[in-house]
This record gives sequence, C-alpha cells and structure tokens, in this order.
Amino acid sequence: MRELGLELPPVATPVAAYVPSKIVGNIARSSGQLPFVNGELGVLGKVGAEVSLEEAYEAARICALNALAAVAQTTGGIDSIASIIHVTGYVASAPDFYDQAKVINGASEVLGEIFGTGGKHTRSAVGVAVLPLNVPVEVEIVCQIVKIRND
Amino acid sequence: MRELGLELPPVATPVAAYVPSKIVGNIARSSGQLPFVNGELGVLGKVGAEVSLEEAYEAARICALNALAAVAQTTGGIDSIASIIHVTGYVASAPDFYDQAKVINGASEVLGEIFGTGGKHTRSAVGVAVLPLNVPVEVEIVCQIVKIRND
Amino acid sequence: MRELGLELPPVATPVAAYVPSKIVGNIARSSGQLPFVNGELGVLGKVGAEVSLEEAYEAARICALNALAAVAQTTGGIDSIASIIHVTGYVASAPDFYDQAKVINGASEVLGEIFGTGGKHTRSAVGVAVLPLNVPVEVEIVCQIVKIRND
Repeated sequence: MRELGLELPPVATPVAAYVPSKIVGNIARSSGQLPFVNGELGVLGKVGAEVSLEEAYEAARICALNALAAVAQTTGGIDSIASIIHVTGYVASAPDFYDQAKVINGASEVLGEIFGTGGKHTRSAVGVAVLPLNVPVEVEIVCQIVKIRND
Repeated sequence: MRELGLELPPVATPVAAYVPSKIVGNIARSSGQLPFVNGELGVLGKVGAEVSLEEAYEAARICALNALAAVAQTTGGIDSIASIIHVTGYVASAPDFYDQAKVINGASEVLGEIFGTGGKHTRSAVGVAVLPLNVPVEVEIVCQIVKIRND
Repeated sequence: MRELGLELPPVATPVAAYVPSKIVGNIARSSGQLPFVNGELGVLGKVGAEVSLEEAYEAARICALNALAAVAQTTGGIDSIASIIHVTGYVASAPDFYDQAKVINGASEVLGEIFGTGGKHTRSAVGVAVLPLNVPVEVEIVCQIVKIRND
C-alpha cells in the first residue's frame, strides 16, 4: 500500500450496538462503512443532485479503505487478508441517476490496486433513497483471511 | 430470554418460493423479516414521514426477534446459535430522514441483550425507497451455529 | 434445465473492476445481475410506474438465470451447484409500490424449478430508489457448491 501512496485510516467507533468487523472461520466481514476521513464526513446528499459522480467515486474509495481498515484491525493486519470476496455498494441516488456502477468502481478499483488478483470480487451496486447521516455512499466488504484467528 | 421478558415469536410462513432460514455448514441465515406480530403488521409507511423514529426502532426490534425465531426453528432452538455474525437493516425512509442507524439499533440492541458478547455483529443500515407491504423496516441476519445440523 | 425449456445465458462481462462470480470454500457468489438478454436490457424504469408487476417478475427471472450462469461459469457447470443459499432482490420501485415480494418470486420460482428442494433459499426483497442503467430489478445469489474448485 505504501507504494501506492495509500494508508489505512483509523477505524471509526460504531455509534451503536455493533462492531466494525467480525471473523468467523476464514471469512471476515466489515460493517457498512461511511466516507469518514479523520472523523469528518465530506460532501453530503444524493448523487446526481447535490453530489457529483466524481465526488461519489472518491467517497466510495474512502468507504472501501475504511472497510479494509475495519477488517484489518480484527484480523491482525492487512497481510492477513487473502482476498476480497464481495462488495456491496449503496449509493444515495437522485431518481434519475443511473451510474451506481461507476460510483462503486471507486471501491472496486482501490481494492484491485491493493490486492491485485486477490482483489477481484463479486459486487452489487444499488441506488438507495437515503443513507445514514445523509452520506452519498456506504460500502460493506466480505474478505477471505489467511488464518483463522478466532471463531 | 425469559429473564429479559422476551420470547421467540412463531415463524411466519413465507408467501413465496423461499424459506424462513437455511443452514450451510456452521452458518445459518434468515430471510429478510418484516415486523409481523401475531400475523399483523403494525404501523406502515416511511420513517420520517408516516412513521416516527421510536416506532421504527420498535419495528426493527420485532424484525430481529422474527429473524431469530426463523433461524432457531431451523437450527433446533436458540441455544444452537453461537453468535450473530451480520445484520442488514433496510429502513423505508423519507428522503430527508438520516437516522437509519438509530432505527436499526432496535435490532442490534435486542440481539445484544439476548446473546451478550456473542451478539456483537457487523451491520449495514440503509434507507430504501419502499419495502414489501409498505412496512417501515426489514431485517436479515446471518448467524454462527454451534453444531452442523445439515448442509 | 432442458426439460424445463430453460438454458443458461452467456455471462455478461462486468464493466468494472469486479468479476461475475467467485468461489471460496464451498460457497459461490454472483455479482448483482441485471436483466440483460443477449446484451440488451428490456423495459426500463421503476416498477409501479413505467414497469408493470408482470414485466418486473419476468426481469427477476432473467436476472436469476444470469446469476446462475455467472456462478456456473466459475464452478465448472450447473451440476456443480448443490443448492441455492440466498437471494437478494432489489426492485427499483415507485414510492407506492409494495409488491417487491411478488416481483422477486420471478427469481425464486425459476430457481425452484431448476433445483427442486435444493433451490429452497432464504431471501430479502427490497424496494430501492433506482438501479444501475435504470433497470427495474437486480438479483444477487449465494450458492452452495458440490466440490471445492479453488479458494
């Protein structure tokens, strides 16, 4: 990641009765991650209305890094992640915004940059009505981990 | 659960070609559950419009109990559930309602009450346009079970 | 499938940094599939507005076949699929359309026709604001496979 100029962000503390990530067997999941950067959210609103495709792409990239950080914290580091299995990308969308796939490419592409072939994942991208705290994008990931750390 | 004053509700029969829960290996999943109580739905509509945050929180709690009942029916009882892995919470939302996380806390918190540490799960909460039968909340859970009962 | 008059469609190439399906252990997942038929999308828009329930049911059926084709391509054929575990069905919905379950029955029922008892799956059906390329339905599946082909 250093070569890519990327670093894992600190993991946000959930504001509720859940955890940022959990491992069962060789599968680790993240909670749905919002585009927090240093505890601050960037642009808010619906993509195709208040938020541009470019801004939403960047938000998806941030969400993916936050999801990766959440998983890495539980697995004992990013080297414990063997591959990315699945990405679910929720895009808060204006009713006539149809480029959810291009938005969630922000998540898929950064995972590809970091993991190469292991970053190839299945994915669903959908356009929802609204997201928590009015963020434009939320991303959840499922990963395969190298070693079973707990169950 | 008795100490908490909680009991598992009866499992609603799906109105379609699917099942309330399924086990593969040591993982059990529920179908997305609606807030049925004795076959009746309570308040209907979008949260932030016809439905209040408090009503939606209670609906999420009911959905979680229904999901747990669905899984317990398949696993042979709630004692077969070792932990809650993941919760997906869909909130039918008015376009300016941003407290999906507080709504789905209704699900997360009741699971925490019942399972303690084992109830700690990852979670995604999203605001969708509309849900089946106009319910305000739908909740799906993934659980880790103690024993493999079938595969 | 031949007896049912069904055949698996060709698998659409993802337009982004992800793959149509992926296997880890004995679980195979599809990406969210759109109702492409020979590279063409049919009716577009929201169900309950531009798109009828019947058209959306048919779109869900097509999405499920596309998802199955995606998984079969990775597992080495449809005979490698032991059962369908889970279906997530996203329905782009007019705000007063409440029959998402009936739409996603198009997916559930075709999987039941093909796999019989093994086709019984858990499911979530939700009504989202809008879907990629303005399609009315998107379907994602999780399958149990007979043999571990890779991990």
